[in-house]
Amino acid sequence: MNEFGIIEKFFKKKQNNLSNELFHTDLMVGIGDDAAILKLSKNFPIAVSTDILVSGVHFSPTQDPRSIGYKSLAVNLSDIAAMGADPFAFTLGLGLSSLDEFWLEGFSEGLFEISRQFNCDLIGGDTVSNGKSPSFITITILGSLILGKALRRDGMMIEDDIWVSGDLGEPSAALLLSRKSSKLSKPSPRVKLGKELLGVANSCIDLSDGFTSDLRHMMKSSFSDNGADVEAELYFEDILNCISKKMRTWFSGTRTELDLCLSALGGGDEYELCFSAPEKRRTELESIGKSLNIPLTRVGKVKASDTIKTVKFNASTKAEPKLTLISRNKKFDNISLPSMGFKHF
Amino acid sequence: MNEFGIIEKFFKKKQNNLSNELFHTDLMVGIGDDAAILKLSKNFPIAVSTDILVSGVHFSPTQDPRSIGYKSLAVNLSDIAAMGADPFAFTLGLGLSSLDEFWLEGFSEGLFEISRQFNCDLIGGDTVSNGKSPSFITITILGSLILGKALRRDGMMIEDDIWVSGDLGEPSAALLLSRKSSKLSKPSPRVKLGKELLGVANSCIDLSDGFTSDLRHMMKSSFSDNGADVEAELYFEDILNCISKKMRTWFSGTRTELDLCLSALGGGDEYELCFSAPEKRRTELESIGKSLNIPLTRVGKVKASDTIKTVKFNASTKAEPKLTLISRNKKFDNISLPSMGFKHF
Repeated sequence: MNEFGIIEKFFKKKQNNLSNELFHTDLMVGIGDDAAILKLSKNFPIAVSTDILVSGVHFSPTQDPRSIGYKSLAVNLSDIAAMGADPFAFTLGLGLSSLDEFWLEGFSEGLFEISRQFNCDLIGGDTVSNGKSPSFITITILGSLILGKALRRDGMMIEDDIWVSGDLGEPSAALLLSRKSSKLSKPSPRVKLGKELLGVANSCIDLSDGFTSDLRHMMKSSFSDNGADVEAELYFEDILNCISKKMRTWFSGTRTELDLCLSALGGGDEYELCFSAPEKRRTELESIGKSLNIPLTRVGKVKASDTIKTVKFNASTKAEPKLTLISRNKKFDNISLPSMGFKHF
Repeated sequence: MNEFGIIEKFFKKKQNNLSNELFHTDLMVGIGDDAAILKLSKNFPIAVSTDILVSGVHFSPTQDPRSIGYKSLAVNLSDIAAMGADPFAFTLGLGLSSLDEFWLEGFSEGLFEISRQFNCDLIGGDTVSNGKSPSFITITILGSLILGKALRRDGMMIEDDIWVSGDLGEPSAALLLSRKSSKLSKPSPRVKLGKELLGVANSCIDLSDGFTSDLRHMMKSSFSDNGADVEAELYFEDILNCISKKMRTWFSGTRTELDLCLSALGGGDEYELCFSAPEKRRTELESIGKSLNIPLTRVGKVKASDTIKTVKFNASTKAEPKLTLISRNKKFDNISLPSMGFKHF
């Protein structure tokens, strides 16, 4: 089977009908030409994001290929969610170490399962043989936005509350303990939540590297000119409220509450949204969480800092925003959180 | 240096100004957020294409990184050219086997050289460490189109002339003989030509796998319902007119004219356009070629065939469209061309 056979058998045939309403009349050229052509019926801004997954780094060669297909699109949907955009189409780049039809069958099923769920349609891509090397998957996803509205990571303000969706800790704990976890294998990108946060949150990021790392990314983007003037306070008792119940059970009796909290703040692969919003939005955010049936927890606050003011955040200085874990009930002295999270290199 | 350092040093800083006029006011979020956001000022259809290049397959680890950067975007621009679209933005996915700053410096310089040349701007992407494995590059490119106009590969009609731009044979000959070739290292995507062909050509494809392979792709797409009823005649004397002069020099005295012709038809990596058009468009096409200063050669014709009519083109039957090389001057008997070109698996 050559590239064209793979496209035909595993992707073009399974696509069947394009599910996004944008395409009912407006996909002019689909899979199989040099490019797909979309005629978008409305004049809206588009969000574009690319994510790569590499075998041995982001997924395991022995993992169920269905969950790899599902997760590949899920992590891209999560990026679109973090912008407050509405995903509608994606392209797929596949570098395959071997032509394993069983793997392709599972992969494409998982991929189309979540593609249909979110009405986000495969419109094209490329497939290459990658020799004996680990396989990789590159997805570029497109989303639509409302004019003038977007969630950015650089909009954080001093005195903003820091919020997080869902619970924390399960994916990294499942990896560590080799436990089954649907949150790890089939994360739920927070697309509906992202759209509701438009005009409410000041900034937003999706949690892929880990809460502390991703919060630092957001702070660096937002305060690049006055870096060390800013810090974040995180509240221990509030974070305990959003620690995964499964994680608690798995570690039952073997870890302190503080250990659990630090693990949850450091672990990656969450695909929850972390966002900041002014105090006056608290009631509104609580009702958004209720209406979507997604727990939203207020876990911290952005503060002006009184430490050295000369250091700026940028790639060369390597200055890292200060994060302090505080116990309201004085269970421990303030803890300055070290830089953690997934290292790309 | 981590992922963010790489983005900052080699990509964000070099970008300087976005060159495409679409972005002068309309790139709302650029590199560094979860997604880029484009507000497109006009309501046009967009073309989207993804291409992967893998080290050891599409480029060599010892190759000048500038030419790798240049070529990575060139092959994607060529896909957009083949649709008659106008490229305006791209995302870059980089899987790197090691953090080689010398390589990244050259790669990004070559990439931005052609990015500026075509006013096609980098808007985002992803970078991952790929361990000891060969590096790979995935680019997704966006182009704009005029409503209702696109060059498709499935529009070929019986009795259409078959045309090709530029010359053929140099890239594959350079690879075979290890010669320097700017056409191999820095191909010129035919973006201007593609746009001129809108409304003139019936079908179009860019030559990446090789003329005979890509012509067969176009025939399969166009005649999938009546496969073996259709064949293409290719005219030896006309093809000789578009054989690369460099290739002729390199093989001088060692190959027959027929050998040169077959090599040129089989060799990949051309990034010329092959297109079909009705006879009545000949004068118009000749003047398009003159005005763009690009040789356009009429090399064949699509014919109704009188062979078996039951075979259809599709991935499972593996039926291949018949291509016949004919010498008008009767230098040889008609030659039925075998299926050649780059094998993806």
